[in-house]
Amino acid sequence: MSSCAARLRRLSETAEITIFEKGPYVSFANCGLPYHVGGVIPEESSLLVANAAKFNNWFNVQVKENKEVIAIDRAARRITARSACGAETQHEYDVLVLSPGANAIRPPLPGIDLPGIFQMKTIPDARTVKQWIAQTGAKRAAVVGGGFIGLEMAENLVHLGLETSVIEMLPQVMPPFDPEMVEPLHAHMRAKGCALHLGDGVAGFEPGPGGQGLAVKTQGGKSHLADLVMLVIGVRPDVGLAKAAGLELGPRGGIKVDEHMRTSDPHIFAVGDAVEVKDWVTGEPALIPLAGPANRQGRIAADVIMGKEPSRFRGTQGTAVVGVFDFTAASTGASEKTLRRVGLPHEKIYVHVNNHAGYYPGAGQLDLKLLFAPQSGKVLGCQATGLVPGVEKRVDVVSMCMQMGGTVFDLEEVELCYAPQYGSAKDVVNIAGMVAANVLRGATRCVTWADEDWEAIATGPDTALIDVREPAELERNGCVPGARNLPVSSLRKRMGEVPQGKKLYVYCQVGQRGYYAVRQLLLVGHDAVNISGGWKSYKDFNASHLLHHGSSNGTNGAKL
Amino acid sequence: MSSCAARLRRLSETAEITIFEKGPYVSFANCGLPYHVGGVIPEESSLLVANAAKFNNWFNVQVKENKEVIAIDRAARRITARSACGAETQHEYDVLVLSPGANAIRPPLPGIDLPGIFQMKTIPDARTVKQWIAQTGAKRAAVVGGGFIGLEMAENLVHLGLETSVIEMLPQVMPPFDPEMVEPLHAHMRAKGCALHLGDGVAGFEPGPGGQGLAVKTQGGKSHLADLVMLVIGVRPDVGLAKAAGLELGPRGGIKVDEHMRTSDPHIFAVGDAVEVKDWVTGEPALIPLAGPANRQGRIAADVIMGKEPSRFRGTQGTAVVGVFDFTAASTGASEKTLRRVGLPHEKIYVHVNNHAGYYPGAGQLDLKLLFAPQSGKVLGCQATGLVPGVEKRVDVVSMCMQMGGTVFDLEEVELCYAPQYGSAKDVVNIAGMVAANVLRGATRCVTWADEDWEAIATGPDTALIDVREPAELERNGCVPGARNLPVSSLRKRMGEVPQGKKLYVYCQVGQRGYYAVRQLLLVGHDAVNISGGWKSYKDFNASHLLHHGSSNGTNGAKL
Repeated sequence: MSSCAARLRRLSETAEITIFEKGPYVSFANCGLPYHVGGVIPEESSLLVANAAKFNNWFNVQVKENKEVIAIDRAARRITARSACGAETQHEYDVLVLSPGANAIRPPLPGIDLPGIFQMKTIPDARTVKQWIAQTGAKRAAVVGGGFIGLEMAENLVHLGLETSVIEMLPQVMPPFDPEMVEPLHAHMRAKGCALHLGDGVAGFEPGPGGQGLAVKTQGGKSHLADLVMLVIGVRPDVGLAKAAGLELGPRGGIKVDEHMRTSDPHIFAVGDAVEVKDWVTGEPALIPLAGPANRQGRIAADVIMGKEPSRFRGTQGTAVVGVFDFTAASTGASEKTLRRVGLPHEKIYVHVNNHAGYYPGAGQLDLKLLFAPQSGKVLGCQATGLVPGVEKRVDVVSMCMQMGGTVFDLEEVELCYAPQYGSAKDVVNIAGMVAANVLRGATRCVTWADEDWEAIATGPDTALIDVREPAELERNGCVPGARNLPVSSLRKRMGEVPQGKKLYVYCQVGQRGYYAVRQLLLVGHDAVNISGGWKSYKDFNASHLLHHGSSNGTNGAKL
Repeated sequence: MSSCAARLRRLSETAEITIFEKGPYVSFANCGLPYHVGGVIPEESSLLVANAAKFNNWFNVQVKENKEVIAIDRAARRITARSACGAETQHEYDVLVLSPGANAIRPPLPGIDLPGIFQMKTIPDARTVKQWIAQTGAKRAAVVGGGFIGLEMAENLVHLGLETSVIEMLPQVMPPFDPEMVEPLHAHMRAKGCALHLGDGVAGFEPGPGGQGLAVKTQGGKSHLADLVMLVIGVRPDVGLAKAAGLELGPRGGIKVDEHMRTSDPHIFAVGDAVEVKDWVTGEPALIPLAGPANRQGRIAADVIMGKEPSRFRGTQGTAVVGVFDFTAASTGASEKTLRRVGLPHEKIYVHVNNHAGYYPGAGQLDLKLLFAPQSGKVLGCQATGLVPGVEKRVDVVSMCMQMGGTVFDLEEVELCYAPQYGSAKDVVNIAGMVAANVLRGATRCVTWADEDWEAIATGPDTALIDVREPAELERNGCVPGARNLPVSSLRKRMGEVPQGKKLYVYCQVGQRGYYAVRQLLLVGHDAVNISGGWKSYKDFNASHLLHHGSSNGTNGAKL
């Protein structure tokens, strides 16, 4: 809304512009709330981006705070606003821009209104939680919901010294990611002392034993004790006003707008978390509450209202990042889950590559999954995670590529900044592009750990599983049950040991040596495929229970 | 060469592949040499990427180290190689790939062969310098050349406790950058105790007073004493062998190759720092010794040799980064200097924006210059600098955009990862795109501090210079002589004080409020332009002596 009002003023000095804000702050940094609770951002005032006086002085925009618009009379082009004291006033408009945002979802669970259950959407929310902790001396926190805000809250509560657990209905945190990609994040959060209860939704709340604190009851029959519950299971577009005014809603329940951000009423525009946008990859309508797109929408609405050359909102890729205990998880475009759901054909590869030159101190591995179209190689999505700097920059580059309609071949050759402390001559993004391009060019075939029954492969008459790492690595890390070890370093000399006439499934630690081995095997006439991501991906798939395996006792890898 | 040999093997198990290497190491990380000298990378062995045994075991590639190829008999397809002991052997080839690299430039200056003058291209070079420092107890170092290696060496020598100075012929370090963009780097290096002697080339070397150390004599008549001189003024393609064999060279003196990396002899390919490539922005032939493009070239040559679908080297954007004392400077595409030289029409804008949300601890300013085509908005180049993380990621995104033929309008709307510790809802890249797009859409006009005589503007009858910052900022930072202060926060109320009928040149601290003010002024009928980058850019231009000003006593800004 701020971006819309400011741009309207830049396009017209004479327009009368008024902002109605139902809360006390017209513009605040809601993304900073968890960090304010955690004390990382000590001053509440740091979160106030602009106040009413600034809007007035800089932009000649009238701001009416604590004034909720409760009705729209579209025929008369008039709104009714209500003050905190209950007084109602009416205001006429030529053009109305709605930006009601989204409300925290608060399902009607038993006990939901017990004291100690909070949401995290506004500055007063943050203030309330801080006061609750200070006044009750809360020691245990339960965060219900493992999305962006949930994880940020969990980190900050741990930071404050609370014994913290995250309760999430899905079997993974961070729903926009594919499950195997967040396994390292699960492990990291647990290592930092944050308990994760996954795959078990909340059924209700009860007072804790002896009336102390709360018991969070789950559908799985568990009971988690907490002195503080953060209910952060997502948001829902605030469409009450729009619906009452008869504005059309979309299939996902958001306000329907065209690419100029115009609603079904030509005099009413809508922007931000309340509107339904086009998922740019799948073409589906989507609710994507992100700050960047909301800002763009505000400026586009302003341009259209003022009759500037028609700006268009092209939809969104949903590029996003979360940082949790120094771990970074970033993504853009569609996940594999989404591509499966909408039935969009796709290939995928995994790479596990150092964030910068390995010989420079501080290098560490970054995991990246790339999803792309089978023939064209058009990039459809990317997820990257890691405990090192530079995770989100790879996703940023892929996001730019996707916006331009780019392919894995473009990623293969993109020129990225290289000096040993920043990257590598072959950057993570280049390597992901190369691996994907090799699949499309037929140099190697693409198999992942989710695709086959590995016990059957390892023991079957027509197949074999081959581990091409050095023996010391198998000793140290373990290996997949039934795999035969033939190190790539001596594969040529030991070619006679390779099973004849079988389909060979090859893996190494991260995928590169597997590729080398597969090329050798193919060139001498074997039928071989490389298992994407190697042992590193095996462990992630195994932890996420997506690994195909024949028996229950072979799932943790065997120590030799 | 390694990338070429390994890929050749992946495409053929039967090809006989031999690498001849004149030095002792077939594959080492030359980018790590300065950091090894400085002790940041303690072990020399860390720099050895792959040795002859690995090439043999993994790739069945024969490596002949310490064996220099001294002649090519193209008619007979035979090379002559010479061992360290002087023995010569002959070897036949079907296809020859040249990757001789580039030699450090060592001009025939008086005294150039005095002891204590070193280059930094190889592991033995690094070893020699480390030994020299250890054995002589060198206290003072002079680094001749302010490019990538020069600055990295300077940092590492300071790190070792040496009193270090950089001597550079140009009036700036980092020649690929425009001068005003490296002024903050100059200031930072000096603050870190590294002396910079700019705009004064080296004329020769003499023994120091009493025969102790060296005196570096400059063309400007100065004498800088040093116990150690690093001569790192650039490299020149090593084309001796190619030239002697009659292979065609390009206008810049590198080996001429086509987009398949084939030389004028169809049986000979060439890759790496010795070849001439196409500057992708200007279309001119260029020598760009970077590791990423060299790797790509090697793979392309292998594909072509093995008859794979024709890969093409599309040229290079010269994307590069340097880190000096935690300061990062990154660039891609053409500089303004280059665009002027080749006569390519261009516009430019400057932004100075926080690397991430200002309310999250650790935010700091990042300076970015964007060069783009006047009508289409096609991005031509980008330079970014700053003492904060995230400088190079912005350049990476712009590099990807440029590769795809993208425009400033694409940068305006690219969806980048946002969480408060990583970026902003409107990222630096978005803001640069918006500012540039506003110029192209005619919302504001583009003037930089290099364009006008500011004393004449401030005092002329038809022009006025207006500073729209708050009075306290002028008090604290200074302002441009002759500027009138009309803060944007009260501009509407004080519109009567704006000079009538004059062309108004407006600036603020970084450019944003100047833009707001210009929009106001334009809408009420004034003729106004915003000076790109505001006071921050003023200081950079002033320090780089690119500022247009009428008198010599007004160049440092006046304290009010």
